Amino acid sequence: MKRLLISTVATLVALSGQANAQDGAIIHDAEYYILEAQNGERWAEDDTRIDAKLAALRGANAGKPPNIVYILLDDLGFGEIGSKELSVVRGYDTPAIAKLAQEGLSLQRMYTEPSCTPTRVAMMTGRHPVRTGTMEAKATISGEGLHGDEVTLAEVLKGAGYYTSHVGKWHLGDIQQAFPNEQGFMHAEFPVHQQGQLAIMHADAEVADVIRGVDPSSAAQTFTLDTTFVPNPAHMVTGVEIRDGQMYEIGLEPGETWTQDKYVEMNERYQDNALAQLRKLAAQDKPFFLNYWPLLPSTFTRSDISEFKTLNGGVWAESIVQVDEWVGEILDEIDALGLAENTIVVVMGDNGPFMEYRGLSGGDDRVYRGGKAQHLEGGVRVNAYMRWKGVTEPGSYAEDMLHVTDLFTTFARIAGAKDQIPQDRIIDGLDQSGVVLLGETHGRRDYVFVYEAAVLKSVVKNKYKMHLPAPGTNPIIAPIFDLYRDSREMRAIDSIKYGPWAGGQFVAMVKRHMANRKTYPDREAIVKVPYEGIVNLRPETQEMVEHFLKTPMK
Amino acid sequence: MKRLLISTVATLVALSGQANAQDGAIIHDAEYYILEAQNGERWAEDDTRIDAKLAALRGANAGKPPNIVYILLDDLGFGEIGSKELSVVRGYDTPAIAKLAQEGLSLQRMYTEPSCTPTRVAMMTGRHPVRTGTMEAKATISGEGLHGDEVTLAEVLKGAGYYTSHVGKWHLGDIQQAFPNEQGFMHAEFPVHQQGQLAIMHADAEVADVIRGVDPSSAAQTFTLDTTFVPNPAHMVTGVEIRDGQMYEIGLEPGETWTQDKYVEMNERYQDNALAQLRKLAAQDKPFFLNYWPLLPSTFTRSDISEFKTLNGGVWAESIVQVDEWVGEILDEIDALGLAENTIVVVMGDNGPFMEYRGLSGGDDRVYRGGKAQHLEGGVRVNAYMRWKGVTEPGSYAEDMLHVTDLFTTFARIAGAKDQIPQDRIIDGLDQSGVVLLGETHGRRDYVFVYEAAVLKSVVKNKYKMHLPAPGTNPIIAPIFDLYRDSREMRAIDSIKYGPWAGGQFVAMVKRHMANRKTYPDREAIVKVPYEGIVNLRPETQEMVEHFLKTPMK
Repeated sequence: MKRLLISTVATLVALSGQANAQDGAIIHDAEYYILEAQNGERWAEDDTRIDAKLAALRGANAGKPPNIVYILLDDLGFGEIGSKELSVVRGYDTPAIAKLAQEGLSLQRMYTEPSCTPTRVAMMTGRHPVRTGTMEAKATISGEGLHGDEVTLAEVLKGAGYYTSHVGKWHLGDIQQAFPNEQGFMHAEFPVHQQGQLAIMHADAEVADVIRGVDPSSAAQTFTLDTTFVPNPAHMVTGVEIRDGQMYEIGLEPGETWTQDKYVEMNERYQDNALAQLRKLAAQDKPFFLNYWPLLPSTFTRSDISEFKTLNGGVWAESIVQVDEWVGEILDEIDALGLAENTIVVVMGDNGPFMEYRGLSGGDDRVYRGGKAQHLEGGVRVNAYMRWKGVTEPGSYAEDMLHVTDLFTTFARIAGAKDQIPQDRIIDGLDQSGVVLLGETHGRRDYVFVYEAAVLKSVVKNKYKMHLPAPGTNPIIAPIFDLYRDSREMRAIDSIKYGPWAGGQFVAMVKRHMANRKTYPDREAIVKVPYEGIVNLRPETQEMVEHFLKTPMK
Repeated sequence: MKRLLISTVATLVALSGQANAQDGAIIHDAEYYILEAQNGERWAEDDTRIDAKLAALRGANAGKPPNIVYILLDDLGFGEIGSKELSVVRGYDTPAIAKLAQEGLSLQRMYTEPSCTPTRVAMMTGRHPVRTGTMEAKATISGEGLHGDEVTLAEVLKGAGYYTSHVGKWHLGDIQQAFPNEQGFMHAEFPVHQQGQLAIMHADAEVADVIRGVDPSSAAQTFTLDTTFVPNPAHMVTGVEIRDGQMYEIGLEPGETWTQDKYVEMNERYQDNALAQLRKLAAQDKPFFLNYWPLLPSTFTRSDISEFKTLNGGVWAESIVQVDEWVGEILDEIDALGLAENTIVVVMGDNGPFMEYRGLSGGDDRVYRGGKAQHLEGGVRVNAYMRWKGVTEPGSYAEDMLHVTDLFTTFARIAGAKDQIPQDRIIDGLDQSGVVLLGETHGRRDYVFVYEAAVLKSVVKNKYKMHLPAPGTNPIIAPIFDLYRDSREMRAIDSIKYGPWAGGQFVAMVKRHMANRKTYPDREAIVKVPYEGIVNLRPETQEMVEHFLKTPMK
């Protein structure tokens, strides 16, 4: 409910003479107002053109805004998909996504958060995860998750008349208020946890030496006193669906064991159901938002791959090719249903490659340095492709900076749902409709704050990046990188070429950002009863929940 | 004159039952015969198709083989040119070369030698530089260079009726027998040395802090006893041309100083003259070989760039964009002259980026690790684009392995000049006409020996690469890399996954290769009088030569 702007921001807004005109009463981070003060007039002109374009597009679509199909792929950093030129580096190819790139717009400088949960929180809420209190969702039972008071993109779009549908990975917590059906999705089917449970914590993965310890029979347990320390993944809830307004776990009977085969089945089910959803949604007279988050390419055991087709031969390499085919099926279905002109499709990765599985996976940090869980560009830079037939120019590129939170605000604008965005909290996502509708150079962002969980690790501004130095370090010698000249952030010693001016400027950015976090405090993390609302919990799951509730939390 | 094959090779040839059928009496390295034994029949079928295609193409071109335009760009590793997808990584774009890629064939796995002279020796002779005795050509006066008995591609093509023309960088030595006009080129204009002299060793570069010590006035010389230790670049020969069969230095008067402006002029002159050559050659009734080796993008001082146009802002980044425009002019001229259908154009880099100038240059090792002078992929992998309108499929890719020596043999085959290739020495270059005429998977190489000067540093076979371990190391723990799964050759510790089988196999390869080097011994390096044959040496140059000749060589 706090509406006070900190003094710096207030001054800048006054200076701009625009009083935050572009985004109405939406509250952004301090840095945005510095840009608005300098670019507000141009953006106002852009806005007039954008509004006219959107009105014309709606006019041609029976008054409806476009459908949105958002496909988020797991742990795929920049250079991993959509580019034939790099197939020789990776040893595999993704022709369907490359075709999408040729038919649409390549968002060349898309920043995510460095891991699954934070990127998904950011996309769904338009906010840095640290503000929401949800920075991770565990592979084990935890009673944590996205707060019900967060306002998701699904809620925003639903409020503007969209039908909202979620299929696949969710990964925002194992408590009822965090589930997609409680967060604005009218249709939802999803696993409660993540691939750590579904693709790793099983005996097949132990045989493949991907994991150790999850199969109690794989070592003597002579001195084991606590058999619950190693959780049985089959005792946790796996996949759930909504039937007649009730949540049911499906696909696993009481007493059954979870296996890699079941994981494969789950993946295929979500793909089939995403296609089925498309057909169903196309038959309605409403615009729709289909949020399809495949579990693939996340896979780890070699034994379930019947035929290796890539030069790479890694399990992820094979799986990326598989998921590429699936993306192709979705795109073909959109075209076959005649939806291409009125549907925005976005396909992107959620963070960099999972380096801890390199070798086995066949993945690696190939273009930018670093991967999942790291603030380095390799952790937070992904390929993102957007197609809106008749709007985005085929084979076009935009090198404007985007952050995954921008999709929240941008989709809201395009959907005519901007008034559904809450105005009592910081919204980090900026309106990037200009990039979508007017093309490259019409972006509104030149900065990103990169967190690893709750810790601010680096700041990007324009083409410069500062890794946050140790407390007390004189910023003149802070590690600062020019991302075009040192794209792998390798040699901070060169930063003396930037430090004298950039050190102090970066420190000022961080101060403004932190001051804003005090003005609009971060939400506290919550702990609630896991799995509430699921009506058919198996006996072993009930027992696990009971044990969890008896365990002291502090 | 030695024609004996070592026993391993002889055995393999006998096994193949083909007796080296593909390449007649050309002698290759041992490894080739292992491939021929396994693939000879398929290659023989390919050869029938290739010969038929070549005959048809000649029939449609008044009986003539195609023209060849070969543009070799300096110090540009894989990912630096031709790919819009990577412009956001580099902060610049190369639209003309990207257009070439879209019109032709991207040779995705082209290996060069790791530095300028060795790559150029390899391309010109089809042989590893270590065999020729020429592994470097200095920026200072040295009396070294390519032996006159080496048979160059120019000599091979000239022998088959081609007009041969060289414009630009040569860099194969400062002695007469090494000069292009003595090595088969009927037209030649070139600087005798290289950019080290022309773009670095001058006062402008000292002001820009690119180099130190070359301007004696930039520090007190109180105790200097030998004023020749720091050579004056303006006393060395700069650019030469042939007029009426005589070699003349041009563009620098006695007493004049060499400057960055003169370097810029030299570059522009070669570009203008390459275009002029094209027009002249097109008017003749002969097939032609135009060998254009620009000195750009090699440039170092910021003061000579009037307008920075790239996001990167490095001197090389700006210069790459400049040379991209120039490549575009050449391609446009070829099209305007109606030559596209009968002209093979190849544009490629000669080795990886010059990492010692990173920051200033704006270059870096972006995709593969390492750069110029290193055996790592970043040093020896380059983009290579080939266009032969009507033959190479537009926008096609070949991930077959090629080495720059293969261009020697392949161009000879396509030109109908294979019988001009000498049969008394090892020819490392393999006939890759199949890749050009039949496309991907029709290559004939799966190995590369990577030297740094005279030292074998690594061996590539299929997708595996071994860095040569220290003498005495058990090959089971040699650093071996899977180039698709660890494209940056970062973590040799994973090599235990390959070592048990690959260690011994790699060692066997090296043994065969070294045995062949004994059977066909490397040529000794030569030292001769520099600059012989240049008729207008300036007095300061004559003095320098006299001093050089008086200096004890050992």
